[in-house]
Amino acid sequence: MSTYDLAIRGGTVATGHGAIACDIGIRDGRIAALADRITDAGRVIDATGLLVTPGGVDSHCHIAQAEANGTRHEETFATASHSAFLGGTTSVVTFIPHFKGGALAPQVADAMDQAKSSMLDYAFHQIIADPTDAVLAEIPTLVAQGIRSLKVFLTYEPLHLSDAQYLKVLLAARKNGCLVTVHCENYDAIGWRTQALIDAGLTAPKYHAWSRPPVVEREATHRAIALAELVDQPIQVFHVSCAEAAEEIARAQARGVKVWGETCPQYLTLTADHMDRPGFEGAKFMCSPAPRDTAEQGRVWEMIRRGVLDVVSSDHCGFSFAGDQGKAMNGRDAPFRDIPNGIPGIAARLPILFSEGVSKGRIGLDEFVRLSSSNAARLMGLYPRKGAILPGSDADLVLWDPAKKQTLTNAMMGHAIDYTPYEGLDVTGWPVATLRRGEVVMQDGKVQAEPGSGRFLPRAPYDYIRPTGRLANGFDAAPWPV
Amino acid sequence: MSTYDLAIRGGTVATGHGAIACDIGIRDGRIAALADRITDAGRVIDATGLLVTPGGVDSHCHIAQAEANGTRHEETFATASHSAFLGGTTSVVTFIPHFKGGALAPQVADAMDQAKSSMLDYAFHQIIADPTDAVLAEIPTLVAQGIRSLKVFLTYEPLHLSDAQYLKVLLAARKNGCLVTVHCENYDAIGWRTQALIDAGLTAPKYHAWSRPPVVEREATHRAIALAELVDQPIQVFHVSCAEAAEEIARAQARGVKVWGETCPQYLTLTADHMDRPGFEGAKFMCSPAPRDTAEQGRVWEMIRRGVLDVVSSDHCGFSFAGDQGKAMNGRDAPFRDIPNGIPGIAARLPILFSEGVSKGRIGLDEFVRLSSSNAARLMGLYPRKGAILPGSDADLVLWDPAKKQTLTNAMMGHAIDYTPYEGLDVTGWPVATLRRGEVVMQDGKVQAEPGSGRFLPRAPYDYIRPTGRLANGFDAAPWPV
Amino acid sequence: MSTYDLAIRGGTVATGHGAIACDIGIRDGRIAALADRITDAGRVIDATGLLVTPGGVDSHCHIAQAEANGTRHEETFATASHSAFLGGTTSVVTFIPHFKGGALAPQVADAMDQAKSSMLDYAFHQIIADPTDAVLAEIPTLVAQGIRSLKVFLTYEPLHLSDAQYLKVLLAARKNGCLVTVHCENYDAIGWRTQALIDAGLTAPKYHAWSRPPVVEREATHRAIALAELVDQPIQVFHVSCAEAAEEIARAQARGVKVWGETCPQYLTLTADHMDRPGFEGAKFMCSPAPRDTAEQGRVWEMIRRGVLDVVSSDHCGFSFAGDQGKAMNGRDAPFRDIPNGIPGIAARLPILFSEGVSKGRIGLDEFVRLSSSNAARLMGLYPRKGAILPGSDADLVLWDPAKKQTLTNAMMGHAIDYTPYEGLDVTGWPVATLRRGEVVMQDGKVQAEPGSGRFLPRAPYDYIRPTGRLANGFDAAPWPV
Amino acid sequence: MSTYDLAIRGGTVATGHGAIACDIGIRDGRIAALADRITDAGRVIDATGLLVTPGGVDSHCHIAQAEANGTRHEETFATASHSAFLGGTTSVVTFIPHFKGGALAPQVADAMDQAKSSMLDYAFHQIIADPTDAVLAEIPTLVAQGIRSLKVFLTYEPLHLSDAQYLKVLLAARKNGCLVTVHCENYDAIGWRTQALIDAGLTAPKYHAWSRPPVVEREATHRAIALAELVDQPIQVFHVSCAEAAEEIARAQARGVKVWGETCPQYLTLTADHMDRPGFEGAKFMCSPAPRDTAEQGRVWEMIRRGVLDVVSSDHCGFSFAGDQGKAMNGRDAPFRDIPNGIPGIAARLPILFSEGVSKGRIGLDEFVRLSSSNAARLMGLYPRKGAILPGSDADLVLWDPAKKQTLTNAMMGHAIDYTPYEGLDVTGWPVATLRRGEVVMQDGKVQAEPGSGRFLPRAPYDYIRPTGRLANGFDAAPWPV
Repeated sequence: MSTYDLAIRGGTVATGHGAIACDIGIRDGRIAALADRITDAGRVIDATGLLVTPGGVDSHCHIAQAEANGTRHEETFATASHSAFLGGTTSVVTFIPHFKGGALAPQVADAMDQAKSSMLDYAFHQIIADPTDAVLAEIPTLVAQGIRSLKVFLTYEPLHLSDAQYLKVLLAARKNGCLVTVHCENYDAIGWRTQALIDAGLTAPKYHAWSRPPVVEREATHRAIALAELVDQPIQVFHVSCAEAAEEIARAQARGVKVWGETCPQYLTLTADHMDRPGFEGAKFMCSPAPRDTAEQGRVWEMIRRGVLDVVSSDHCGFSFAGDQGKAMNGRDAPFRDIPNGIPGIAARLPILFSEGVSKGRIGLDEFVRLSSSNAARLMGLYPRKGAILPGSDADLVLWDPAKKQTLTNAMMGHAIDYTPYEGLDVTGWPVATLRRGEVVMQDGKVQAEPGSGRFLPRAPYDYIRPTGRLANGFDAAPWPV
Repeated sequence: MSTYDLAIRGGTVATGHGAIACDIGIRDGRIAALADRITDAGRVIDATGLLVTPGGVDSHCHIAQAEANGTRHEETFATASHSAFLGGTTSVVTFIPHFKGGALAPQVADAMDQAKSSMLDYAFHQIIADPTDAVLAEIPTLVAQGIRSLKVFLTYEPLHLSDAQYLKVLLAARKNGCLVTVHCENYDAIGWRTQALIDAGLTAPKYHAWSRPPVVEREATHRAIALAELVDQPIQVFHVSCAEAAEEIARAQARGVKVWGETCPQYLTLTADHMDRPGFEGAKFMCSPAPRDTAEQGRVWEMIRRGVLDVVSSDHCGFSFAGDQGKAMNGRDAPFRDIPNGIPGIAARLPILFSEGVSKGRIGLDEFVRLSSSNAARLMGLYPRKGAILPGSDADLVLWDPAKKQTLTNAMMGHAIDYTPYEGLDVTGWPVATLRRGEVVMQDGKVQAEPGSGRFLPRAPYDYIRPTGRLANGFDAAPWPV
Repeated sequence: MSTYDLAIRGGTVATGHGAIACDIGIRDGRIAALADRITDAGRVIDATGLLVTPGGVDSHCHIAQAEANGTRHEETFATASHSAFLGGTTSVVTFIPHFKGGALAPQVADAMDQAKSSMLDYAFHQIIADPTDAVLAEIPTLVAQGIRSLKVFLTYEPLHLSDAQYLKVLLAARKNGCLVTVHCENYDAIGWRTQALIDAGLTAPKYHAWSRPPVVEREATHRAIALAELVDQPIQVFHVSCAEAAEEIARAQARGVKVWGETCPQYLTLTADHMDRPGFEGAKFMCSPAPRDTAEQGRVWEMIRRGVLDVVSSDHCGFSFAGDQGKAMNGRDAPFRDIPNGIPGIAARLPILFSEGVSKGRIGLDEFVRLSSSNAARLMGLYPRKGAILPGSDADLVLWDPAKKQTLTNAMMGHAIDYTPYEGLDVTGWPVATLRRGEVVMQDGKVQAEPGSGRFLPRAPYDYIRPTGRLANGFDAAPWPV
Repeated sequence: MSTYDLAIRGGTVATGHGAIACDIGIRDGRIAALADRITDAGRVIDATGLLVTPGGVDSHCHIAQAEANGTRHEETFATASHSAFLGGTTSVVTFIPHFKGGALAPQVADAMDQAKSSMLDYAFHQIIADPTDAVLAEIPTLVAQGIRSLKVFLTYEPLHLSDAQYLKVLLAARKNGCLVTVHCENYDAIGWRTQALIDAGLTAPKYHAWSRPPVVEREATHRAIALAELVDQPIQVFHVSCAEAAEEIARAQARGVKVWGETCPQYLTLTADHMDRPGFEGAKFMCSPAPRDTAEQGRVWEMIRRGVLDVVSSDHCGFSFAGDQGKAMNGRDAPFRDIPNGIPGIAARLPILFSEGVSKGRIGLDEFVRLSSSNAARLMGLYPRKGAILPGSDADLVLWDPAKKQTLTNAMMGHAIDYTPYEGLDVTGWPVATLRRGEVVMQDGKVQAEPGSGRFLPRAPYDYIRPTGRLANGFDAAPWPV
């Protein structure tokens, strides 16, 4: 019997802390060894000329998510897994919904049930839409299950929380050792502008961007940070689209606040102009925050390079364009307010980041690995099981041909959605094989994995700390418990 | 008949733009001339050895203000006028209350009625506690009357506005050419901390400061600015107590936002430790935001010197200490939450600013004049009628003995309140006479003026603009009206 | 006999602290009164419909300046006075040169001699090119004469000072109560880039801008400030051309350093592209620092609005274009390095600032008066004799038709130079009369004044302090004298 | 024959990107494998309960350095190696001196010769004291030898460079692919203050700190960065002692400049007060920049946590306290100026950083590994041969008992110097064994290695790039070669 079930030999292994030539020995789905040469393996994959990276960790995806109206997102765990594997992603963190007036447990059960078809490994964020005492009392149970982040919205009807509600969530998170992830846009400001635009007859998709300019994102970002600072609770700011919001994160980091920032490929490649395409086409690019312009993209890259934004997730949230259940659920003439927000990107995320980042020289391979996998794994409490190529880590690996050129099409995405907002984008660098826990689940664009073979990932606390003993505002000297 | 009714001769006239030796000729209550020598006057005041400054403009005072519960502030316009004249202040801007569900007009009428006893000249801010369409429809009437600022609270029950309500006020102000003045503290954060403190049995006055640390002021300041920036509406941030809130104003000013900042003597002389005096004593120093510490006072002075904070008002808001109608209205054992906020300071404002500022070398005479009078007059749309020593200006003048030393006592304050938080403070520099529209209304600590001789000041738009043609976020290119 | 020799009646008087309707009474060349009406005057000028501003104070002009090679600037005090009066300027501060190895006294005598033909009132900066002990020993004599600023160059051969020399000047200034004014560009960096460009055959005028990018100005600005901060000596940074240099000034001001910044019309209206005109034309726009681009102009305006740059001077320094003594002194094919730097602007300064500033809504009248006159007078220790419309001030006044449109031509400049870099610029607002000490020296484009009627202005210490008791780096606690 | 010569089993391996339980297999002095279990090794070290980190890389040490006067530093490569191994450091970068007028090659030969006794692996910085064309022409030879950094001094007689000389070094470095490392203090400012202090009779060691306050470090740091920015040459700022200098680095990093910052244990543990000990004691703590105070130490930690300062080196530079060849070379009464600067710290560096950092909770293990080893290796072009625990890396490893407490004494330092400035400092966490290329060179405080067994490390270019395609000031568009 061989020491290793499988060996990846001859590749360049991009560890996130140097790209080295070595072999990888895999046993029982885990990386058992990195070694100069591994000869004693049951099976060998020749990675000569290829890059090997950790499997992508997409910490922000909406999959099979139940909606308050009884519908469910088109993307199932099965189709999402298919798409993810095509693009080199092997783990996701998706969302458990919450509806006002309801409990969490049934939603957890439902989400767990939906995920049974997953081929991807998966973890969950728990949305908190209504932090009643009863709801908050369920959090210890979540944590015991390994669900350790609470997602809150500062905008969106009916999800948005007041500051008081947000504080309740922060305090509950602090007590239970959870991370809080935040959608930062000012609800009232967007509501006013939206109504004003619609009142003025300005209803086309492009006015979505007009309804939520950067200042409303900056405002909510500062507020989310300030309140977290008040109670010394770590947060991650989701999908930062602009430099002025990112600058608030940078300022807070500089004063020792535990805050991290995420951005997404849409803020690096799309612009508000995409939403100005004729007819209903613009709906394909609608997401929140809205894509800005090319100058802003450049500024977001700078924030990535400064380390202010250290995770690039997809915020995959698919609505098909044709038919009347997706983008057009309220009709093709619906005002922008009534078009569902969100775009699919689980497959496109890594190729875009690799091409726009590494191939174009904006970032190095180390940064790519961290932005696409390691940093998310750390913050989600999955590291080093995920996000690392180290002994003991799950053998989630992607083999890249760094020179391969592709033009993105929806067919390549392999998802349930009938379009991709990145149609026609040229990329250099392409995942030619994906391994999930030692199993080749994608090779040359063919996915092969058992539905249900994905595993639930119970999470540990985030460990990605900029350590600081300092609490805000002298709180630490308080003779009373928070 | 003489050319001038009165001449002030031989003084050093501090104009706010240089201190010069000249005479001042007064006719019909107005300054008619500044001249090297004025000989042709009906009456002469010899100001040799004295400084002459414009009468103080205190743009933030609560006087005879009606409360929702049917009570009224102890300080009447008559007593406030008496106190103000003792301290060199000749004009005030006070508040017209507003109660949820009610209209503005009756409150305007009531405030006008109360002010009939005034000896001070007076103008009004209109509080907006409930910006319904009906209430906002009253604003043009206010403006027609010369009431051109809307005061909003982001904290305090039941006054605090939601962001949506605040936006409605900003938009109404923009449409009607009003200034908006804002109390910036985060309502929900204070509410949570207050309850937590009380739940922990920490109820003494000193916990007032614990309930509202600087971060809650910074948060609300940034938010107030961001939303004003969104709609390009000028605002003044009231009573800034700390550098981190002031820094938000500085940053906004640097990017061209029309925002101004005010501070008060309490943030230059009092600290949170004052509230830690034995028993109920601490209640004498309770105001919001709370006084901080001496280091913070130093930082506030720096913000004054940088010009970020350019008005020093009193925020006079008196509650007597003895008896059961003032500070102790809820009993002497009431938790801090139930002790009314506010401290008296209308008389002490100028002597403190003169002494701590000019006499101690922190600011010059020009800065003193601007901080105490001219800047407020400009921002309130009263300049150059008030706040200036120029032909045509009202002859509101103060004669100072810059070397006179005093130790402040409540008796010197001459107000209706039974204490001063500044008891025992030594000052250098003292107002020895006050003229209001050419009439000597205070001399050597004696006030002589006719109740009702004060005049209502209809205000013009603020004129104190850092001019900018730039609107935030491309708003100016909008093909739709705001 | 009348009380006043002259009255300006019916104008709108722009005082720098409000524009008011009043009359101005003049006696013995001084303003004797501002009054609502002045009837008792020997002569009356009707200013109905006109603006009245203080005469311009141009604190940065090169006139009749001797050069090391024995030549002298073309512009004489007579021609400069003629030009200045046409443009509304009545006082200048010009430069006394200094040559390495030489003493100051002979240059002072020479400059005084040259100035005998002046019609403008004038004061001097003393250049220090070689701060030997002997030279520094002359400073008390200068100060006794009323020459209270020392100008140093951090670039230019042979004027540039080393850091050690600059420190010697700062210390001498501190000891003698002088201001130090600084040309901030990095000598070595410019020297290297210049040589590299010339070595590469890139010699046309436009490469002047290439030789000195903003970073070399920022570097020297930060260094000049840091060393001044070390010894707590006030400085003024001359001719700031870009936001990154101005930002260093802003940062220093925010930390309490006594530093002020000046800019010039060329940085508000010209760009590097002007130097790219065909043939030798580009030489007409060559000055140092070099004009940047239109985006930078916008940023400089922002710095003016923030108050970071608070003086707009001309840096008038004329070299005629034709002939072989001016711009072409080294031939029309000379590499940019060998073309003399400097452009004329003494007449154009105020109309450009008025038009680009006030007429275009970028600044208000108050700001115009301060930027063009009052602030310079304060910083130069001439206020309120100059720069103010107050009793006791010299009666230097300009009457403006704010609506008059002109297209600038060299003929209008009335200077000795054969071109203006502002040829063809359209302006709105024009000085229709200039008074110097009560005498009408220009009316409707006609200058009438006696050569030699200008007066030397002995200067007091600068009084335009942001007061601060704080010295840098604990210096104030030093038990040893600086 | 075994697959591995040696296995480290059972330890917790701190990789700098996670601490994991795994075994390490070593063959031929290199790490050949990381694996869950390694059984096939010739020898086994049981690391149960211990931490395993990469050997320390001390990128800033002065060892056996020749001085212009013909003397040589007391510390030899043999004694330094002994000391380094005791403290867990296995690689150093030391300095090749340069003397004005001399060539580099003889100094390289001499340094190589001195290093023959080394047990440590070593690389070199080449000091450039006189960048003549002849000297710069030697750089390609250096690079061919693997010497890829040029060290320059902006202060110190006779080493300091003018800006022009510094630019020449930057350009030569850029052309040859070298890093430039810079000692940033303003030479002239220090010279002036030093002379002024001595003139005032203030000569004790403590005045060393008075002679070089933070502002002189900030000035030189900004200048060093600005000129590097001008030519787009990467630099590392050495031994940053204060937040205001670090802030210049942070600002530059934020605008995309390739600049890194280093600090040292002395700036985290010593203060200026140490130099105020009685008599000559203070000399033991003299180094440049000077230690500041405890508040500044806190700010330096913040800059470490922000990532602005990412290398902690020792700046080991030993002078014995007794005798007349070390600190007292100019007598025990010498003014501070004449006491040689520098303190020993090669052994103390890692225990101090571990204890003050990890044990006190200021940083995590990942940060410790990066600050002490990986980041320096990357920047010095030695990664992943050094600074990493990866297959192919040299098997330089340290075994730590993280709970072991020690009180530092000079005897523990094992260096040639007769004192340690850290005498009496309590630390928690201690290196119990050190391996260099697979050989146990220290165990339980006993060093065992062959003199001369250290290897010269030819360096590759630094690879620690925040990637940016942007050059400063439009340089990249230049049609001419730099």
